[in-house]
Amino acid sequence: MQHYILRIVCDDRKGLIFDTMKILLAHGSNILENEEFVDEYTRKFFMRTEFILDGDINQLEKEIKNFFKTSTKIELLPKKEKKLWVLVTKEHHCLSDILVRCFHKDWNASIQGIISNHEVLRKFSEMFGYSYYFVSHENKTREDMEKEISQIIASKGEFDYIILAKYMRILSEEFTKKYESKIVNIHHSFLPAFVGAKPYKQAFDRGVKIIGATSHFVTAHLDEGPIIAQGIISVDHSYTEEDLKSSGRDVEVRVLSETIRLLLEDRVFINENKTVIL
Amino acid sequence: MQHYILRIVCDDRKGLIFDTMKILLAHGSNILENEEFVDEYTRKFFMRTEFILDGDINQLEKEIKNFFKTSTKIELLPKKEKKLWVLVTKEHHCLSDILVRCFHKDWNASIQGIISNHEVLRKFSEMFGYSYYFVSHENKTREDMEKEISQIIASKGEFDYIILAKYMRILSEEFTKKYESKIVNIHHSFLPAFVGAKPYKQAFDRGVKIIGATSHFVTAHLDEGPIIAQGIISVDHSYTEEDLKSSGRDVEVRVLSETIRLLLEDRVFINENKTVIL
Amino acid sequence: MQHYILRIVCDDRKGLIFDTMKILLAHGSNILENEEFVDEYTRKFFMRTEFILDGDINQLEKEIKNFFKTSTKIELLPKKEKKLWVLVTKEHHCLSDILVRCFHKDWNASIQGIISNHEVLRKFSEMFGYSYYFVSHENKTREDMEKEISQIIASKGEFDYIILAKYMRILSEEFTKKYESKIVNIHHSFLPAFVGAKPYKQAFDRGVKIIGATSHFVTAHLDEGPIIAQGIISVDHSYTEEDLKSSGRDVEVRVLSETIRLLLEDRVFINENKTVIL
Amino acid sequence: MQHYILRIVCDDRKGLIFDTMKILLAHGSNILENEEFVDEYTRKFFMRTEFILDGDINQLEKEIKNFFKTSTKIELLPKKEKKLWVLVTKEHHCLSDILVRCFHKDWNASIQGIISNHEVLRKFSEMFGYSYYFVSHENKTREDMEKEISQIIASKGEFDYIILAKYMRILSEEFTKKYESKIVNIHHSFLPAFVGAKPYKQAFDRGVKIIGATSHFVTAHLDEGPIIAQGIISVDHSYTEEDLKSSGRDVEVRVLSETIRLLLEDRVFINENKTVIL
Repeated sequence: MQHYILRIVCDDRKGLIFDTMKILLAHGSNILENEEFVDEYTRKFFMRTEFILDGDINQLEKEIKNFFKTSTKIELLPKKEKKLWVLVTKEHHCLSDILVRCFHKDWNASIQGIISNHEVLRKFSEMFGYSYYFVSHENKTREDMEKEISQIIASKGEFDYIILAKYMRILSEEFTKKYESKIVNIHHSFLPAFVGAKPYKQAFDRGVKIIGATSHFVTAHLDEGPIIAQGIISVDHSYTEEDLKSSGRDVEVRVLSETIRLLLEDRVFINENKTVIL
Repeated sequence: MQHYILRIVCDDRKGLIFDTMKILLAHGSNILENEEFVDEYTRKFFMRTEFILDGDINQLEKEIKNFFKTSTKIELLPKKEKKLWVLVTKEHHCLSDILVRCFHKDWNASIQGIISNHEVLRKFSEMFGYSYYFVSHENKTREDMEKEISQIIASKGEFDYIILAKYMRILSEEFTKKYESKIVNIHHSFLPAFVGAKPYKQAFDRGVKIIGATSHFVTAHLDEGPIIAQGIISVDHSYTEEDLKSSGRDVEVRVLSETIRLLLEDRVFINENKTVIL
Repeated sequence: MQHYILRIVCDDRKGLIFDTMKILLAHGSNILENEEFVDEYTRKFFMRTEFILDGDINQLEKEIKNFFKTSTKIELLPKKEKKLWVLVTKEHHCLSDILVRCFHKDWNASIQGIISNHEVLRKFSEMFGYSYYFVSHENKTREDMEKEISQIIASKGEFDYIILAKYMRILSEEFTKKYESKIVNIHHSFLPAFVGAKPYKQAFDRGVKIIGATSHFVTAHLDEGPIIAQGIISVDHSYTEEDLKSSGRDVEVRVLSETIRLLLEDRVFINENKTVIL
Repeated sequence: MQHYILRIVCDDRKGLIFDTMKILLAHGSNILENEEFVDEYTRKFFMRTEFILDGDINQLEKEIKNFFKTSTKIELLPKKEKKLWVLVTKEHHCLSDILVRCFHKDWNASIQGIISNHEVLRKFSEMFGYSYYFVSHENKTREDMEKEISQIIASKGEFDYIILAKYMRILSEEFTKKYESKIVNIHHSFLPAFVGAKPYKQAFDRGVKIIGATSHFVTAHLDEGPIIAQGIISVDHSYTEEDLKSSGRDVEVRVLSETIRLLLEDRVFINENKTVIL
């Protein structure tokens, strides 16, 4: 008995759910959860099915792949531990949440390592038993710095996601393309308000009554990748810029944590510049 | 026994609360609620005190005004019904909430009249017994249109606030200056994201996971006046632009309703381009 | 082209989605939205499918009914206006929301009439053009009073739901059984906390920091029917019992409004003493 | 220049704010934040004032204590690190949040030690460098077990709060009286719903649409002490009891974290069986 997740993305047409069910049932699958969505504008069909199979998954996979057109994106994932890289700078809050949850096995995930352009979080990371890699940004080009990061990542083999847990360097187009759909960032504002640097300063100056955080896939265009999750917290006139930052940190943790949970359960689909969460 | 609200705005200095209390107590006031705030950046002091007085308010007022410097803005408000003008276009939801609450005396407010550039909401407004004024925007300059509106407003004497309850015309600098600090708008997005027209279209295209509404004082700069209140609602990939609008309407009602309640209780202070809510 | 909603409730077994899809597709249906749920404990299967059909619905219905066992509960609902009765006592807030939304056609619903044991809301209801029926509770048994209400309801033929929009009388077991699964109540607290009368007094005495509202189907057991929706609002020590009531009213409106929307879209299923919302 | 917090609780009478300000100003205090509350029912006055003083605090304290009646409770707290004991059983989530925040100095608090009736969390606690004390509940009376705990607590001298971070043993009346107003618990439900054991089972069986967490001071009456903070999260029919627990854990962390922050800032006052948060 094995637990699988089938993810399908293809052009919409009549009977897609029916056809998929037919193949799954013919192989004796027991469907646990099934959700689908059709985007009316792009006419794309998205489907996520969790099922249990007591039989040959290869044969099932072959049939599904034969059936669907070549343009279809199909993933059959045995439900297993995902491997994460975490990139940080100096702030601990998002990293702490990730380390605690992985350490205690709350999540079905393991950490490949933590990479940072500062040494500040080494002690804390190593205390949990994780590897910490320092890659300075000083006296080198962005290209060189990212090459070092890529080498570290490559040295440990396959992985699933790179989590930017308050990593404060802008990534090159080359780097983001290399790891397309694999890099996730937590932005410290309610995007698309306050794009760019110092969002809490911007929020303070504008006198907003709510602040937020946004997680998104990282693309070549800063802060413009597909949004995965957003959260907010109410604030008032008495909040200094420092208070906004402090409250903001709690929302950032919450939004990034929820985002990683969705990724670990294979619920997030990219739909052009948006996401579909099933 | 009369119920008063004292509002003070002035440059901060030591002992302001103490000095104010001294005068209030010397006149036998019974203080019900008191809140103050000092803006660390502008060094402005804001104070709102609700009290009951069984004596001569004129003498008390004179003493307070004598005591504070001329640069100070002091308002002594008997807690009485406020008079509202409501400007609308075609959408009923915000107007409905205001009419229902005023009709049932949930609010300490009366409606001077409803002004619209369409006839759509006349029947509904008049059914509640309120006056409805149609001011077309067709075949006339914005100047002329606003002159008509000003004449209608003037014809009924003093008033407290002009509520833009989904009034979809941009107001001139002249008009906004004439009624400075008296015009309040509900903007159908989480400002400063999605400034300008069609915010739900913008939100849909960006694939946000939260939509919001923002109330603000209207200044010469579109959607940039001091924010009074903000609210949000979670949405997901399945929401069409129409769904976003529909959910958005409920948030708009909620935020505008909360805003009017704050204004009716004299809790909103303008602090340069922000607000202080006491 | 007609718009239908298929609702199925039956014992779970393999292939139910598949089998249903098969019949729907064979008749050329275009499926717009589909959601299902299996309760692991009761082993019940729930399914809601919205589809468009350009053909003979009777034939389709026959096939589905033939296919499923007799124990299955199947409803094929043309998506049409639902008919509501509204029962009130003296408070206007929930009624106002319902009247406003029906009057403006925000909802696909019409109002059969308003029934009350007081005359307070007559003027307001009639102003919208709706029929208002006064049924006094004085000098008569609960049985007699409910008989009068039943006669009024019967006099207008078929209907879909009886909404208790702050109707403050307890209904008899007989009455609730007569209209089983058709009566919906808004309870002014976060059930199951503060069951029974004066929940705001109870909440005040307990010093809670959050108050709520709960909508539920009405069964013979007071406040114990299946919960449909719940909402909350944060409060603090400064709230008097009256303030709690006032804030509570806004949550009650929001929760009841959301509940009616779910009912109008045929999304609510009763699952023993719980609900499934698809 | 020292930072102080003055907390006053006494019977209400005219001029209390005025009188306090007078003494503070006479000593050249610079007031940073001031909030007060009068309970209309108990006629108690609560005040919290943060101020900076460049002078002799002893003289100021003497004057304030002389001025106020003996029935008054006055605390003058130099703003310094608070000392916490943390009691746990097997679940890590609340403990993790506390350890992480103390370790990184996010809070102005230090941890005296962790006490548990299990060994499960020893490794994790010691990894942060904190002392872990195992006190078995097996083969001994509650009295004896609590005596051991008291001895451990006493061995480290003065402390401020005992945090029950998912400590699953009921405390005796004697123990709760010994540490009156010093023990804080996080209860895994929205009190007063689901008092007692297995609240998630109760919530699941009742089919609620919202679950919550409640922090409160611990008194002799289980789950009935003054509530400090509450939080909620929306759930639906698809949540198993295990899912409710998992979502509940995140709310528990949030509510307990907020509670500790309020305690560290000396904002929480006990008002009979309620709290006042200033």
